[in-house]
Amino acid sequence: MSEVYASRRTRLRERCNASGSATALISRPANVRYLAGAAPHGAVLLLGGREDLLVCAGPLDDRTHEGRPDESLRVHHLRAAGGDPAVAAAGLAAGEGGDSLAVEEHHLTVARHRELRAVAPGLRLADLGGAVEQLRVVKDEEEISCLRIGAEIADQALGELLESILVGRTERHLALELERRLVDHGADGPAFPTSVATGPHAGLRGHRPTDRRVEEGDFLSVCLGAGYRGYRCEIGRTFVIGTSPADWQIELYDLVFAAQRAGREALAPGVACRDVDRAARQIMSSAGHSEGLSALTGHGVGLEIEEDPQLTPAAMGKLDACVPVTVEPGVHLPGRGGVRIDDTLVVRPEADGGPELLTITTKELLAL
Amino acid sequence: MSEVYASRRTRLRERCNASGSATALISRPANVRYLAGAAPHGAVLLLGGREDLLVCAGPLDDRTHEGRPDESLRVHHLRAAGGDPAVAAAGLAAGEGGDSLAVEEHHLTVARHRELRAVAPGLRLADLGGAVEQLRVVKDEEEISCLRIGAEIADQALGELLESILVGRTERHLALELERRLVDHGADGPAFPTSVATGPHAGLRGHRPTDRRVEEGDFLSVCLGAGYRGYRCEIGRTFVIGTSPADWQIELYDLVFAAQRAGREALAPGVACRDVDRAARQIMSSAGHSEGLSALTGHGVGLEIEEDPQLTPAAMGKLDACVPVTVEPGVHLPGRGGVRIDDTLVVRPEADGGPELLTITTKELLAL
Repeated sequence: MSEVYASRRTRLRERCNASGSATALISRPANVRYLAGAAPHGAVLLLGGREDLLVCAGPLDDRTHEGRPDESLRVHHLRAAGGDPAVAAAGLAAGEGGDSLAVEEHHLTVARHRELRAVAPGLRLADLGGAVEQLRVVKDEEEISCLRIGAEIADQALGELLESILVGRTERHLALELERRLVDHGADGPAFPTSVATGPHAGLRGHRPTDRRVEEGDFLSVCLGAGYRGYRCEIGRTFVIGTSPADWQIELYDLVFAAQRAGREALAPGVACRDVDRAARQIMSSAGHSEGLSALTGHGVGLEIEEDPQLTPAAMGKLDACVPVTVEPGVHLPGRGGVRIDDTLVVRPEADGGPELLTITTKELLAL
Repeated sequence: MSEVYASRRTRLRERCNASGSATALISRPANVRYLAGAAPHGAVLLLGGREDLLVCAGPLDDRTHEGRPDESLRVHHLRAAGGDPAVAAAGLAAGEGGDSLAVEEHHLTVARHRELRAVAPGLRLADLGGAVEQLRVVKDEEEISCLRIGAEIADQALGELLESILVGRTERHLALELERRLVDHGADGPAFPTSVATGPHAGLRGHRPTDRRVEEGDFLSVCLGAGYRGYRCEIGRTFVIGTSPADWQIELYDLVFAAQRAGREALAPGVACRDVDRAARQIMSSAGHSEGLSALTGHGVGLEIEEDPQLTPAAMGKLDACVPVTVEPGVHLPGRGGVRIDDTLVVRPEADGGPELLTITTKELLAL
């Protein structure tokens, strides 16, 4: 297992050398975890130089942090409480005679960056940019396996909820119920705050559950995800409460379903990210729904629930095989509600059957 | 209600003028919420200049964000999706002919700061430092009332759990159960991830619940908190499972109890923060427990679960009346477990009866 982390660090080191920096300081927690197996609170990874080093803040307060640190990686604990591992790491890099250090300027604050410069004035600080995020985009089969298991767990939790009585229950309670079931089925925890949106809230992306109760005739849209070994994915479905959906509800649902299907079917290695977005978006705008649409059709998933690539109108870049993404178009009509349908899929070559759907709960419109 | 926010902004503006910057850009979410009543995702507050302005990222995706924006505050929504409100705000400040802008260098990343400079090259960017955090330290009675209600909610949730069967249940399940009860009793949600630590995990600060099951003879330490109208506080208690605690457990518990009491009794307006820490710490180190102690005895609470002031050995500054803090010493013996006792109190003048204890669950050692 530790060869995986060591080889990721090697790949990063090679990229750094190619762009002129012999050493790099990784501080974004998901990036530290990707390269070191775990990211104790505040820990940073110093790459290059004599050897790779994980610098942790003080003695480990709690050894059951998420993930297991790569045993082949040396760990340095700060002696004094309250010290900043990034500052200590910069000091170490300077002490080893380095002349430059690439840092994550999209993560370090101005204040911390200044402290690094103060402790290592001879060190030229360069920008690592999103080098680790780029490495993380294409997943290996072990990572995909974790996402697959997470998706199963989310499917199970959602399936159980659908068998229970929903009318009269609050959004908050349903969300908590879903999160309990995620953990029951083996999740580390929810991948993100569970969203349960009833009636006029339905279809909103990222709606935080309120005390509104489920009523007959409501749209009910649910979005949840499981974390499994650090990997996060998501599923979103919209239902109608009661025996007979209204015509406008069926019409809206069919539209979003068609848009989401177009998005899914557009996924293939080599396809431009913006083209996937357009495939979904144009179906909805041609039906007159350009207002009320989300800014994004989908996004990558992995150690973070939202990572590269983005499936948006202005996205640069293309998809590759083994890139997991969500396809989650939706429409929200203020005061009335709306529909959102969200799957996590892995881009696969067409020869291998096209995109692998991880979240297999039915997308048929269910009346509950 | 909006007068509260307007008057906070006035006080901040006065501080900025006094230190030479006419305009300020607030980006840390808790600080935006403190000054504007709400902090929609990514929103920033532009202060000074013609009028105060809340700059939000695109149209509100979801109007049920936490908190209610101050109605007297003007709001500007970015038209294009994906824009950075901080960059837009800097552009607006430059456009109004300002010559300097104070920003939160402990929050803005190097990359964002560079974008601000690029969009407003004529604007001198200064550091606001922790000006808003300092304003937030002393709470008004409305804020203290929210903390008091949050503490009641946490007390109730904990009390209910203690009446249930614990042996055989996992840390994870107990944590989820506590969080459900917090919401049942009216919390926005948990103030932070609930910590349930059994047996050898007990006494660790910030332990993330695992699948270990509660066993007879275990120490069980629990730490939870409720969010209420954005305000967060915490309570931590340690119990013994079974009918008769072992001698070493009673001894350890009495020690931590004495240390925590000393910390609580040290709280008064004008007392140095480091003296509160020392009052608790010296009781434990004089019993030979200098290893295994936390770096901090307590911390302020408010819109964030951990805010100024810090009660640590190196802390500068003194306490004031109406400052809410935790007092949470503990000791952890690797492989054996430990004890942590955590209260939230409000510093009050001795003439008014000394510190107001918000978390009133008994601190007597209970065998459950």
